[in-house]
Amino acid sequence: MRWRNTHARLPGLLLALLGWLALAWPAWALNVPVKTWTLNNGLTLVVIPDHRAPVVTHMVWYRVGAADEPAGKTGLAHYLEHLMFKGTKRIAPGEFSRIIKRYGGNENAFTSRDYTAYFQRIASDKLGMVMEMEADRMQNLQLSEKDVKTELEVIKEERRMRTENDPRTLFAERMQAMLFTAHPYRRPVVGWMADVKHLTLADVMAFYRRFYTPANAVVVVAGDVEPEKVRALALKHYGALKNTAAVRPRWRTPEPPPLAARRLMMRDARVRQPTFQRLWVAPSYRTAKGGMAHALDVFADALGGGTTSVLYRRLVVKEKVAAWAGAFYSGDDRDYGTFGVYATPAPGVTPERLEARIDAVLKEVLERGVDEKRLERSKGSMVASAIYALDSQFALARIFGEAMATETGVQSVLTWDERIAKVSGEEALKAARAVLRPANAVTGWLLPPEKKAKAAMRSSSAEKESAR
Amino acid sequence: MRWRNTHARLPGLLLALLGWLALAWPAWALNVPVKTWTLNNGLTLVVIPDHRAPVVTHMVWYRVGAADEPAGKTGLAHYLEHLMFKGTKRIAPGEFSRIIKRYGGNENAFTSRDYTAYFQRIASDKLGMVMEMEADRMQNLQLSEKDVKTELEVIKEERRMRTENDPRTLFAERMQAMLFTAHPYRRPVVGWMADVKHLTLADVMAFYRRFYTPANAVVVVAGDVEPEKVRALALKHYGALKNTAAVRPRWRTPEPPPLAARRLMMRDARVRQPTFQRLWVAPSYRTAKGGMAHALDVFADALGGGTTSVLYRRLVVKEKVAAWAGAFYSGDDRDYGTFGVYATPAPGVTPERLEARIDAVLKEVLERGVDEKRLERSKGSMVASAIYALDSQFALARIFGEAMATETGVQSVLTWDERIAKVSGEEALKAARAVLRPANAVTGWLLPPEKKAKAAMRSSSAEKESAR
Repeated sequence: MRWRNTHARLPGLLLALLGWLALAWPAWALNVPVKTWTLNNGLTLVVIPDHRAPVVTHMVWYRVGAADEPAGKTGLAHYLEHLMFKGTKRIAPGEFSRIIKRYGGNENAFTSRDYTAYFQRIASDKLGMVMEMEADRMQNLQLSEKDVKTELEVIKEERRMRTENDPRTLFAERMQAMLFTAHPYRRPVVGWMADVKHLTLADVMAFYRRFYTPANAVVVVAGDVEPEKVRALALKHYGALKNTAAVRPRWRTPEPPPLAARRLMMRDARVRQPTFQRLWVAPSYRTAKGGMAHALDVFADALGGGTTSVLYRRLVVKEKVAAWAGAFYSGDDRDYGTFGVYATPAPGVTPERLEARIDAVLKEVLERGVDEKRLERSKGSMVASAIYALDSQFALARIFGEAMATETGVQSVLTWDERIAKVSGEEALKAARAVLRPANAVTGWLLPPEKKAKAAMRSSSAEKESAR
Repeated sequence: MRWRNTHARLPGLLLALLGWLALAWPAWALNVPVKTWTLNNGLTLVVIPDHRAPVVTHMVWYRVGAADEPAGKTGLAHYLEHLMFKGTKRIAPGEFSRIIKRYGGNENAFTSRDYTAYFQRIASDKLGMVMEMEADRMQNLQLSEKDVKTELEVIKEERRMRTENDPRTLFAERMQAMLFTAHPYRRPVVGWMADVKHLTLADVMAFYRRFYTPANAVVVVAGDVEPEKVRALALKHYGALKNTAAVRPRWRTPEPPPLAARRLMMRDARVRQPTFQRLWVAPSYRTAKGGMAHALDVFADALGGGTTSVLYRRLVVKEKVAAWAGAFYSGDDRDYGTFGVYATPAPGVTPERLEARIDAVLKEVLERGVDEKRLERSKGSMVASAIYALDSQFALARIFGEAMATETGVQSVLTWDERIAKVSGEEALKAARAVLRPANAVTGWLLPPEKKAKAAMRSSSAEKESAR
């Protein structure tokens, strides 16, 4: 079945992105006419009219993700995401996806640390049908022992293919597990393999009943629709649903004070090129005070966003010690953000030398700050990227859905560009100094096996010799 | 009240020991006439006659510890331990301890990763009374909102005094959190402060009802008693108790493969002397196969047990790079053991130099093995220590109680010395090579603040200069 192979692609991608790339906060103020309601049963409804084409994007977000799983049951949120395609009394297993396809639509789902989301893109006049089916599986999921067993094999294979088979993902996973000392963001969304193998039908159903309930759900509709009509449809399909559990405020072990610098060195036979990464726990957009998340975002872009950034120009262009270097700030998770710096040594450069140069450049930047012109450029390009992202109906729905699912709120999205434009050099530097402290840093190297590394080093020096 | 100040001393001590010292497995075969029964409700009874004095040690062990706590509720097992002294319908708060004292006895409790235990030492003829009171609080604990609030302040203060105020404990805590990537042994027994502050009466009662039930309890009686009479007393007081919850096999996220060497560097203004520690996850006595735990125990003693060990003689006596150096194997936890090496640099020696020498000595030992004579000496002294420990009635009760509470079993204790005596040099080396691998190692340095360290280094060099 199609969805088996594709609907879980997003979580894997998100995971990889989290570990490796800047997850730019793609948001903007530019007159997005977003409307929100809360139904009597607590369900949140978000409507974003977008009349460019007669299509609609419908999403259901549950405020539950990997960071909400019980102890010893990592991977449960993602497992349930897969199982939500199994069917109900009215919809046979796999039928949900086939119906959407029959009407020319597509659909998928994704799980993060904070949420699990299901979406469909389809002709606007099918919105009612889609809502009816989502409302149905919010309460009437039917699973057999056979369903969960079969799907467990799929999940295990997914973990094998995307994690076990990819040293970069393994590395990212271990870095996260070290970056967070106590908070559950340290767990991989797909789960630790041994836990995954141990998940049961009872685990899934208890999790489903506790978290898949109207008061814990956000329905987002973006597309060729009138808000009031969407509201009426939502009332019809979701309004009558009863809550199956009380929604309690989320509690995840907060991070204790970061007392110690940490390092991780992973060698893997499949690695060709050494990679450096340094991560710091930072505030998220939701938890940051006084615009600190915006300041970190701007600082990260100036420091390491693309080939005009400080890190790239210094380490790659000028000093030629790195083949690639950059930085990112990821602030869209609910409880914490992450600030990161990454680099790959240029041929013939040892990891030690590259790291010493990174240390030196960071020290300098944290002393002097970033050039104001470069900051202005960052702010401009960040807002422009956001405007560009606006062009996608899917992105629109995703951004507002995520803001509601992480309890960050729509307002944070709507005022984003304004606040970004206001970030001063002083503010950016102050935020960076608060986050990029040694005791808060987790430094990682992903390296080839010892022998291979030495051989590579020798051959590079040999090349150098012969070039002279 | 006395117990408030003292009954939780053991867990703190255990924690510190776990991080810092060898927890030698104090066990032996020497004709301990231990008897065990299982009552109809599942309660395990262990009786060890010891007629040297007319006293008895009575212990109740619950097979639940910090590693069994729900996500976001670290510290709950230890919190409940404190609250168990609050009282029942029949026994007023604090009365339990006062009654024991009135009869000249003493009592206390301790919490570990795997168990929570309560004990009393008292005249043998008071055994029935003590059992009656323990059986009562196994099922009839009464707690008010005021009780839990008051006790929470005690626990918070305990954490502040023993953890926050002691950089060595903080360091040990962070080392454990890094040593275990996914398994809950990574959590501190006392709990992370933010979780502790968030624990509620409802959390405590749910935990109590789920885990404090006859089928999850082990009663140990050591002392001036006849086994059959103890059995009759146990049947009378514990036999009629109904189970309040089904006891399920324990599930804790197992450790994923150790892929990456890790390091932690903690600086603290209160530290005078740098300390080195390297830890590896190892099998425990329960999980080890083919006598591997015994082999690791012997190897650890030969490598770093006291001033005649390899590490001490090489690093302290011969090379003079360390002021102290040692090794330990701790194998008494249920799911994993820990192998550790620790050292303190001699004055004027940099951490880098000491670590390089430790690396060199470990490499050499892992290549060549340990001198057979030294191994024999270790085996002899380990068994002798165990015999010496036999002299304490409390230790007798504790050892068998722990073996039952961790599901390691009495047999492992009874055959311990025999198996230790059989450990060959080859076996010890093989076990060490399997555990002491680089990708499995977590290396930590606890250091003074940067400036202080430099100043100390300078003054040491100055001393050296003037000594010439």
